[in-house]
Amino acid sequence: MNKFLSNPMRGMRDLLPSEVELRQGAISIIESVYRQYGFTQIETPTVENINLLTSNQGGENEKQIFQIMKRGLKIEDVKNISSFSELVDGGLRFDLTIPLVRYFSANQAVLPMPFKALQIGNVWRAERPQKGRYRQFIQCDIDVIGDKSDFAEKELIVATSEALLKLGFSGFKVRLNDRRILRAIVEDCGCKETDFDMIYIIMDKLDKIGLEGIQKELTSKGVEAKPVKKIIDFLGNITGDAKKDDLFTILPKDIDPAIIQSLKDIMAFVQSQTECAYEIVFDPTLVRGMGYYTGPIFEIEDKDYPVSIAGGGRYDKMVGRYLGTDIPACGFSIGFERIMSLLEKRGYKLPSQKEKKVLLFDPTGVDANTALDIAQKLRKDGASICLQERRKNIKQQLTTLAGLGYNSFAIIQSESDKINFKSFTR
Amino acid sequence: MNKFLSNPMRGMRDLLPSEVELRQGAISIIESVYRQYGFTQIETPTVENINLLTSNQGGENEKQIFQIMKRGLKIEDVKNISSFSELVDGGLRFDLTIPLVRYFSANQAVLPMPFKALQIGNVWRAERPQKGRYRQFIQCDIDVIGDKSDFAEKELIVATSEALLKLGFSGFKVRLNDRRILRAIVEDCGCKETDFDMIYIIMDKLDKIGLEGIQKELTSKGVEAKPVKKIIDFLGNITGDAKKDDLFTILPKDIDPAIIQSLKDIMAFVQSQTECAYEIVFDPTLVRGMGYYTGPIFEIEDKDYPVSIAGGGRYDKMVGRYLGTDIPACGFSIGFERIMSLLEKRGYKLPSQKEKKVLLFDPTGVDANTALDIAQKLRKDGASICLQERRKNIKQQLTTLAGLGYNSFAIIQSESDKINFKSFTR
Repeated sequence: MNKFLSNPMRGMRDLLPSEVELRQGAISIIESVYRQYGFTQIETPTVENINLLTSNQGGENEKQIFQIMKRGLKIEDVKNISSFSELVDGGLRFDLTIPLVRYFSANQAVLPMPFKALQIGNVWRAERPQKGRYRQFIQCDIDVIGDKSDFAEKELIVATSEALLKLGFSGFKVRLNDRRILRAIVEDCGCKETDFDMIYIIMDKLDKIGLEGIQKELTSKGVEAKPVKKIIDFLGNITGDAKKDDLFTILPKDIDPAIIQSLKDIMAFVQSQTECAYEIVFDPTLVRGMGYYTGPIFEIEDKDYPVSIAGGGRYDKMVGRYLGTDIPACGFSIGFERIMSLLEKRGYKLPSQKEKKVLLFDPTGVDANTALDIAQKLRKDGASICLQERRKNIKQQLTTLAGLGYNSFAIIQSESDKINFKSFTR
Repeated sequence: MNKFLSNPMRGMRDLLPSEVELRQGAISIIESVYRQYGFTQIETPTVENINLLTSNQGGENEKQIFQIMKRGLKIEDVKNISSFSELVDGGLRFDLTIPLVRYFSANQAVLPMPFKALQIGNVWRAERPQKGRYRQFIQCDIDVIGDKSDFAEKELIVATSEALLKLGFSGFKVRLNDRRILRAIVEDCGCKETDFDMIYIIMDKLDKIGLEGIQKELTSKGVEAKPVKKIIDFLGNITGDAKKDDLFTILPKDIDPAIIQSLKDIMAFVQSQTECAYEIVFDPTLVRGMGYYTGPIFEIEDKDYPVSIAGGGRYDKMVGRYLGTDIPACGFSIGFERIMSLLEKRGYKLPSQKEKKVLLFDPTGVDANTALDIAQKLRKDGASICLQERRKNIKQQLTTLAGLGYNSFAIIQSESDKINFKSFTR
């Protein structure tokens, strides 16, 4: 096969056996935790109607859709089109949220309320490929549809934290904020409403660029001196010498006390569950990119790397935009590809459920059927057995198999052999 | 959402929680059996280069590809095309075999030999949608690449049979034949080589249309009287009054004895493993549709329904057509969607791994945090807990949850309540 045909398509990748094993092991840990919390798994088709995918809820992602051509077109049809909609009728989903809302709308009658959905599946985005980023990747979302209380947030945060703990993450930090608090802060500083989104994104960089960096960036974007000073004063309460212990005390006074009480409730409940393995903090600078959030927003930050490994929030208006009637909703998404790369960096090994053994036989001393019989008996006892003829270069043969996760081997030289498995020394 | 947007795309389907649970349970049983047999799971991207998918190995399926439009095209570009290849650069895979061969070619250096691959994944075909058939469906394949001995066939058949037994199938029949025997039979009857494929397909219908039907159909297709008589005489040995016990004795004498010996070896080994739960028979009329088979072919037939639930065979020439050098290969595919519909028909329930419990609380007597705390303690003990406020129509509330597989419930009325779970009476 020529090189062009043998490689995956640009931006796509093949997963080797060891990668599949690690990913599936992680998925099964995540699934089992979420199931314990009463989330039920659903599946939507990977191809959706193009009209659904381009209904302006997906932001930038809508520009990166892999579009599916209509079937049965002729060259003449194509030459006469006046718009792309005559060519295309479907697309690969770019997230799991829009399909979830469509699914909920189609199947509402048979679903429980509140509906607690778990989705783990591939999404596709035609982004410029770069190292470690692919055009097909897994998303892992839980969502609660139909619960307006902070019950939803509490279960989402505790369940996701527990899944991460079970995957070997610990010492991570859950950052919590509320979109309405963020809004009140910049409003209180005298910023213009049209600048809000831009200012949020700059404030979110506090950890990375510090107070000075923020001052510079705000000024360069044309924010007036007075609001800039007020923002910097405010942020001074969060970082540096003037840092306050209780960040709830620095908020504008006109924020609805119920909003603050709810965050405190969420924090108290989560704190009661952490067993010191992770922490939850109120962070009035937390933004979360998506414009559709309406209430509490939250993010989990890794202990060693300053990256988000999970993020989510409440989006009470989005379902309504499709359904016509507002239905409260709240979701949390694990950055699956990111946690996989962190786990790989840390040399994470899954707890192996079963013994994986290599059984080699020397065909000059044992016939294949006898070897197969021995393998079958060991399989019946529960072991995983990879049976092969012993090759001349036995060292290389065993090295390849060790790479697949096999951890011991035995060689049958003659029919009367007793089978003793020896561990690989790796 | 209007009806059009809320439905899945034509030919696609949403999977409800109970369906996902059954399917995933079945997949995990299949995976665990195949792993015990030393198969390693791989994953290829769902989108492949269109050139790979249209290289004439996929037969009819190549006409049913969901094609992916190139990104960044402008209307003017489209109007000026002279062929579809200017519009399209990818497609959704229509099977797992062609991607496997590409994968093997790209990653050969790091894969063990023989390479025993397990693939479970979606494929897409733009067939005319019909009841129970969808345009996205799961295939479940195991393949051994690089083993020319019947070792491969033995493990494929025994492993697949064991997976089906674990799924609750039993009493099924493994039918075994060899493409070279089939060829020798029709050659011996004096048929024209150009008619072979057509005659195979008619012979395959023996069970359904009987000797008379076959005679009629062969004649109507223009096969001459003499070969038709010889074929009918031959088939008379398999069915009806003249039925022979040992079908190996009715074969043309010039068949290579090694071919027959190998089938006998495979049968003897499989028979030694069945423990009377299923049987294996030689069936010289078994055809298997795909033209690429070169040696033994096999199929598993359900006990109650005359349908194939798994099929496969040896294809020693196919890898070579891509790679340039022949590499022996052999595969077996479980008809996943078909076994799921049989399991549903039979009301199959998965052995439930963990208790799934509903915990309701009466918000007038217990506050939400207390209820959450109780749920957390039960989860820590291993139970799956779906926590909800008790609703007025508690009967309906519980019915919906029972549909999700929850099997008991308890109601907390006040903080001092002892929690006693009661089984659903279903």
